[in-house]
Amino acid sequence: MDPQPSSAHSPPEMSSARLEGFSDGVLAVIITIMVLELRPPSKDDLTALQALIPVLLIYVLSFTFIAIYWVNHHHLLRATRRISGGVLWANLHLLFWLSLVPVVTAWAGAHPQSRWPAVIYGAIGFLSGVAFYILTLIIRSVNKDTRISEVLGRDIKGQVSVAFYTLGIGLAFIEPLLAYGTYALVSIMWFIPDRRFAAAGDKLE
Amino acid sequence: MDPQPSSAHSPPEMSSARLEGFSDGVLAVIITIMVLELRPPSKDDLTALQALIPVLLIYVLSFTFIAIYWVNHHHLLRATRRISGGVLWANLHLLFWLSLVPVVTAWAGAHPQSRWPAVIYGAIGFLSGVAFYILTLIIRSVNKDTRISEVLGRDIKGQVSVAFYTLGIGLAFIEPLLAYGTYALVSIMWFIPDRRFAAAGDKLE
Amino acid sequence: MDPQPSSAHSPPEMSSARLEGFSDGVLAVIITIMVLELRPPSKDDLTALQALIPVLLIYVLSFTFIAIYWVNHHHLLRATRRISGGVLWANLHLLFWLSLVPVVTAWAGAHPQSRWPAVIYGAIGFLSGVAFYILTLIIRSVNKDTRISEVLGRDIKGQVSVAFYTLGIGLAFIEPLLAYGTYALVSIMWFIPDRRFAAAGDKLE
Amino acid sequence: MDPQPSSAHSPPEMSSARLEGFSDGVLAVIITIMVLELRPPSKDDLTALQALIPVLLIYVLSFTFIAIYWVNHHHLLRATRRISGGVLWANLHLLFWLSLVPVVTAWAGAHPQSRWPAVIYGAIGFLSGVAFYILTLIIRSVNKDTRISEVLGRDIKGQVSVAFYTLGIGLAFIEPLLAYGTYALVSIMWFIPDRRFAAAGDKLE
Repeated sequence: MDPQPSSAHSPPEMSSARLEGFSDGVLAVIITIMVLELRPPSKDDLTALQALIPVLLIYVLSFTFIAIYWVNHHHLLRATRRISGGVLWANLHLLFWLSLVPVVTAWAGAHPQSRWPAVIYGAIGFLSGVAFYILTLIIRSVNKDTRISEVLGRDIKGQVSVAFYTLGIGLAFIEPLLAYGTYALVSIMWFIPDRRFAAAGDKLE
Repeated sequence: MDPQPSSAHSPPEMSSARLEGFSDGVLAVIITIMVLELRPPSKDDLTALQALIPVLLIYVLSFTFIAIYWVNHHHLLRATRRISGGVLWANLHLLFWLSLVPVVTAWAGAHPQSRWPAVIYGAIGFLSGVAFYILTLIIRSVNKDTRISEVLGRDIKGQVSVAFYTLGIGLAFIEPLLAYGTYALVSIMWFIPDRRFAAAGDKLE
Repeated sequence: MDPQPSSAHSPPEMSSARLEGFSDGVLAVIITIMVLELRPPSKDDLTALQALIPVLLIYVLSFTFIAIYWVNHHHLLRATRRISGGVLWANLHLLFWLSLVPVVTAWAGAHPQSRWPAVIYGAIGFLSGVAFYILTLIIRSVNKDTRISEVLGRDIKGQVSVAFYTLGIGLAFIEPLLAYGTYALVSIMWFIPDRRFAAAGDKLE
Repeated sequence: MDPQPSSAHSPPEMSSARLEGFSDGVLAVIITIMVLELRPPSKDDLTALQALIPVLLIYVLSFTFIAIYWVNHHHLLRATRRISGGVLWANLHLLFWLSLVPVVTAWAGAHPQSRWPAVIYGAIGFLSGVAFYILTLIIRSVNKDTRISEVLGRDIKGQVSVAFYTLGIGLAFIEPLLAYGTYALVSIMWFIPDRRFAAAGDKLE
């Protein structure tokens, strides 16, 4: 909002606030339009609703998936001091893979026991994880002189997630439900309180 | 935006601004995509429009439902000083139930006189109420030293809402319209001016 | 963001920033999901595209309609100092009518020469105008001691808009195209530079 | 947020923050709802997925297209000091053309080898480029006394983009795939690091 003009051709500073705002907007729309894929049953009885259960479970999995990315993205950007053009594009790259989650959720929901939807679901998870890792690398490289590496730590969970998604893709060829179980394990792992947020009551402002 | 690095591994502070921004985004999308379930009539005459009336009424009910949550959520977060990881997840849990409102609205709109849509509509209302209550509890627990309890008061309306939703679910088994009437009563109750906002002209900024 | 606790039960101040943010979110979604009603033609030739022209024209009309409300809403809230519970609800009431624009746009686009879609289109325009007027009244009443009345002026355009929508509804019974022409006139009127914004270069910040 | 009342009828200042916020909201919705046009395949096997490849490629093209506009829009507004009514409308004009991207993406995805979808796709790209150019002109004219022209430079890329879109439209009449190739070249050009952002680590805040 208030670029201090230092020298003639100095690049305007990139605002991390607008980067967060746009990312939040995209994530908010992704997490909400997934529900549009949840078609209401055409009949009005309880059996119609039971047919919806696999779709609902996959919706819960995807909702949690996007929610975890929102929390981690928030955490990452809070620790970021400098933004470069590379950071912008790495962030858009991450949002691209996440934007495919609603389609693959709809596909998997319609064919919960089929091999390929389970494989592609895992592939989107894997590629999102890689995109997040690339974003982290680029942010670290342009923030070398800050304490960002200390704050972010070694990101074990991120690496375990990518490994589990790879495992899940493999399991999808044997039994799709095993694949979804593995993806669900990843989400559960993220719920286990983290050193970073666990201390109740991070002071606000 | 400006984390003051206090000690080496100190957690970055969670911004209530971004929590509000993301929640607003999700609520704005939910309240607006509901209208996508309102399919325009295929014919062009007035009778086609009359057939839309039950759908429209349920849309009004759901719009008001989300609007009330937005107002209460706004109120709650204004009084909040500290955010923890638990608050983030409790907030996402609330958004999850609210995100199901458009689907159940479409289902209820298509079958306004059927039992199960009315039951599920009430169940979403009930579970949203419980999720809001859990969010309140967690926010209180990490803000114990502030005056948040005084500000929030005893939240009678929240408890009455959950009770009425339970009653409505029961009535749905007798007559669905009674159930929707009960849910509408809950919304009307929230319109009755509250001690908190009623005093015209809360000073801004 | 920084409520100064004045007395024990003082109401938390309502932030006009969050009111604007939420309204912007809803308006952004409304203006964008309208395009979802613009179904791509099923064929791939130019005649398929020609059949889309009336739908496109009505889309332009509705896009402009929402855009004008965004500009006026922005103007109104910039001049607002105090927000009350009544302002919140009057704002949600306005958003409710605006949220119906995508449905009525789809209906009118599918039946551009039918009477009732033209009537209902005008009715939504009329009711949105009334809702905006109510919002203005309530904002004025809680900001009496500020110079808001001077800044807002007499709002001739708002009154002319509502009058023209009434006229358009009447004309729809004779010839629907006359009605849409009248609605378009309202939008053109709003493009005529206003004393308020016309002076190029309102200083920023 | 804090208009300093200077003289009786002084126009309230337009906030570039709200202009950015609303534009971000619209762009976030546009980039995300495009995915709704990506219908999940009705079958569950790999051939069903292969049929999706042209649609996916056009989705990638459109996602990148909107992403580039977001980055450029961000850059432009960071350098802007004053907003006028004309800037508001020029911005809405740009958003109008961009809002048509999801429809034309769906149409092109359904008919990847047809002439007219490729022509219209290019036309939307061309008109968006013109709209961005008009926005730049108006922003420059109301910010003449600032150094905005120095900061923005001569915008060679913008002019090359519009020229390439014109070329692509012509090529669409010979072979649609050549047209899409040309549009893709425009996007690749924008990835080539710019003097403006390339310097890694623009200092934040």
